[in-house]
Amino acid sequence: MTRTPLADVSCSIARAMDLFADAWTALIMRDVLSGVARFDDIAHDLGISRKVLSARLARLVQEGVLRRERYQEAPPRDHYLATDKGRELYPVLLALMSWGDRWYAGAAGPPARIRHLACGQDTAAVPACAHCGEVLTVDNTTQLPGPGGRTGPGTRVLGPLLAAREPEGGRA
Amino acid sequence: MTRTPLADVSCSIARAMDLFADAWTALIMRDVLSGVARFDDIAHDLGISRKVLSARLARLVQEGVLRRERYQEAPPRDHYLATDKGRELYPVLLALMSWGDRWYAGAAGPPARIRHLACGQDTAAVPACAHCGEVLTVDNTTQLPGPGGRTGPGTRVLGPLLAAREPEGGRA
Repeated sequence: MTRTPLADVSCSIARAMDLFADAWTALIMRDVLSGVARFDDIAHDLGISRKVLSARLARLVQEGVLRRERYQEAPPRDHYLATDKGRELYPVLLALMSWGDRWYAGAAGPPARIRHLACGQDTAAVPACAHCGEVLTVDNTTQLPGPGGRTGPGTRVLGPLLAAREPEGGRA
Repeated sequence: MTRTPLADVSCSIARAMDLFADAWTALIMRDVLSGVARFDDIAHDLGISRKVLSARLARLVQEGVLRRERYQEAPPRDHYLATDKGRELYPVLLALMSWGDRWYAGAAGPPARIRHLACGQDTAAVPACAHCGEVLTVDNTTQLPGPGGRTGPGTRVLGPLLAAREPEGGRA
């Protein structure tokens, strides 16, 4: 219902969330990126209907996030592989996981751990500045207009606000 | 519709996405964390109905992600402030934004930029290992069972798969 307007918003968060508007999509990506890639396995893992799963997978394939590949001919069986675009969703899942671990795991503790194979430690993703490596927070960052920014649905107030922060002017 | 089952899944991604099941929730958090915090401003910015916005804000307050504060008495006007839990959603938004910038910005370029005030550069968040600082990717990480993990709806296949990866055993 909110799908079409969201894609029209001049905001990368809106465009990215458009794909996730149904939360099961994130869990399908979690499954595929964790090695649960066959239709039957994903359906069983998530306990969602085959019809719902088919629709979500079709959208992910259409968006170029997953591709479908036959792994067995008789009987025909397909699995789903993440494209580069799909693999690059991993930081989104890591960020969601960290936040869920921190605020919803409760006394039982986190449901899963991420091990960094290179350093051998159980770890979590920290949002580091691509330039200096320091941790990015709400407090030490500010949002500025980008080249593709425009004021419109979804940015009617935010657009002018960001533009006013740009001392050079004219960017928004 | 998928709300209750999602919260029951033993997975922090599922629990976190439960809050975002409606994508507008992410844009409300974007607005509040960017300084668009008054009800009327958020409603105008996003172009969603006051009824929809009220429901989303009520859920965010109920979940402890936002708190409501009166900033003017006559006439009474409230704005919304992010709690610690809400501020810690910023890495999720940064990760969504980076992905949207990369795959949906097109020729126009990214709609907005993030400036890291400490180093002065326009930047993006890189998911760094909390231990060694290297970039975490699908390829250099693996998922293992956590203390609060269990096999059930949403993890019926993934739970046993992660458990089988744990050489010590017994953790899942």
